[in-house]
Amino acid sequence: MKKFINTIDTLLDDSLAGFAKAHADIVKLNRQPHFVSRLNPARSGKVALISGGGSGHEPLHTGFVGMGMLDAACPGQIFTSPTPDQMLAAAQEVENGGGVLFIVKNYAGDVMNFEIAAEMLECPHETVLVSDDVALPKTHSIGRRGVAGTLIVEKIVGAAAESGKDLAACKALGERIAQSTASMGVALSSCTVPALGKPTFELKDDEMEMGVGIHGERGRETMNLLSATEIVDRLASAIDEELQPKSGQAALLHINGSGATPLLELHLIYGLAHQFWEKKGINIARSLVGNYTTSLDMAGCSLTLSLMDEELIRLWDAPVHTAALRWGC
Amino acid sequence: MKKFINTIDTLLDDSLAGFAKAHADIVKLNRQPHFVSRLNPARSGKVALISGGGSGHEPLHTGFVGMGMLDAACPGQIFTSPTPDQMLAAAQEVENGGGVLFIVKNYAGDVMNFEIAAEMLECPHETVLVSDDVALPKTHSIGRRGVAGTLIVEKIVGAAAESGKDLAACKALGERIAQSTASMGVALSSCTVPALGKPTFELKDDEMEMGVGIHGERGRETMNLLSATEIVDRLASAIDEELQPKSGQAALLHINGSGATPLLELHLIYGLAHQFWEKKGINIARSLVGNYTTSLDMAGCSLTLSLMDEELIRLWDAPVHTAALRWGC
Repeated sequence: MKKFINTIDTLLDDSLAGFAKAHADIVKLNRQPHFVSRLNPARSGKVALISGGGSGHEPLHTGFVGMGMLDAACPGQIFTSPTPDQMLAAAQEVENGGGVLFIVKNYAGDVMNFEIAAEMLECPHETVLVSDDVALPKTHSIGRRGVAGTLIVEKIVGAAAESGKDLAACKALGERIAQSTASMGVALSSCTVPALGKPTFELKDDEMEMGVGIHGERGRETMNLLSATEIVDRLASAIDEELQPKSGQAALLHINGSGATPLLELHLIYGLAHQFWEKKGINIARSLVGNYTTSLDMAGCSLTLSLMDEELIRLWDAPVHTAALRWGC
Repeated sequence: MKKFINTIDTLLDDSLAGFAKAHADIVKLNRQPHFVSRLNPARSGKVALISGGGSGHEPLHTGFVGMGMLDAACPGQIFTSPTPDQMLAAAQEVENGGGVLFIVKNYAGDVMNFEIAAEMLECPHETVLVSDDVALPKTHSIGRRGVAGTLIVEKIVGAAAESGKDLAACKALGERIAQSTASMGVALSSCTVPALGKPTFELKDDEMEMGVGIHGERGRETMNLLSATEIVDRLASAIDEELQPKSGQAALLHINGSGATPLLELHLIYGLAHQFWEKKGINIARSLVGNYTTSLDMAGCSLTLSLMDEELIRLWDAPVHTAALRWGC
């Protein structure tokens, strides 16, 4: 295993320290317990948005803390849920009279720990659960996984909270986006978790993992490598089948890199996915291409389609100032 | 070799098509010959900034086309210089009465082809050569390579051109930044050029390549993997020795990922580099961390330090609207 680290024990702390230094104009870091929060507190009465999850998916979620998006993010150890004390401390730091909305990716550990934190929290609070990964059937025992669509929920609800929407409205909006967002990913190589020191799974030289999860969980099928067009067809078809958008529907198309796939290839994938939906009469009104919900050094990508209307596009376009997404300011 | 491609022959064209679709609000793509230019032409009389180079370093340079930065970028085949007809066609497209400034990374092929284009160009034109890589000695037969510092030249001169500086002033400014910017990189793995289908060089499981170039050229030394602190000490010391900043000097610190290195590690590197210069009394006034000058799927990173003054910081902060850098608008 080759990584830029000093010791495995200090990796997360060292990285968060660097992150906070590099973005000292946007965020501040709390160390015990770990959370990142907005440098400039939101105005009084704004709903406080908090997310979190295992580390190793950067920029998700710490890179989305700032004006117009999250108020705080709680990073767990690598691929490990954050603990309830992190969420509780973050909530106590950023709650400002408008209540707290937790945005949680649907993983058993995350869900449980956010629930425990919510129970201990005395202010009004709600939770939006994101489970956009269509690789697994809806009937899967613990439900579908929350993956790259999460940032779309965070961005749009973040803009709504900033504009003064209350807790109930933010929760309803978050659930509406979560339900109209679907994703699926494919891996060409495994990632290597530093504490393990070896690849999470093995793929032969001519294989890919279709429907992979963001921690390298096996998905639908280990299969022979296909052409980019065939890969996009499979991913996009699964998403399209789930959302069943009608001709004329506006949508946001997000191509997410898993970490080790060049932007050159991600843009190629984008072009093919755009074509796929254009042929069906879908209006790709907004786009996002890059490494946003990564899996350490995995080679791979995911497609996300999120159905939009005028209100959602306006909220997507609203100013945001975070480490990873920044526009309008 | 596992890549998201259809055919090697169409890879670049397919990728550029996707790039242009994804960023259709910022750029337009010319196909024969290949160049990317600003969707909204600059105002009359503005100096037109053009860069280019081999593909495989995305977002460099196409991702830096837009308001406040480049007017056009000419992408060559992967790791191959663009041809003079690309630069000439781009110049003819974007020249708008203020002359053309070419920003060229110091590689023999790039320099030669930009020179040929410049000779054929009838409007006033100048060139800024960037050679920020301190891995090679200044006395190297073809001079030092231009690497991750190039984007700093493009951003700052882009802002100056936008503010109305003339061709001579833009050239002088570009040379000033180029001379006060130094970089050095390290690779933990080779990249794989699609047309070759195998890694460019081999590294053992416990080795790294110190002073690597952005095409995987061997650098100073193949050596055993060191701790992150030791790696940063070597890179930063070489840069510091070159620039010899005095205590109190303001600087921009850029940590660039080579393509396959997680943001988690890049932020860790940032924290260590920040510490290195903080101890010497350097004021790290601005920061940039991420994959900006990549080498396909290479694992590695580079450090860049660029000495700043109030004027340069103001130009760095000026609004920019490109695919890869966006703020203030």
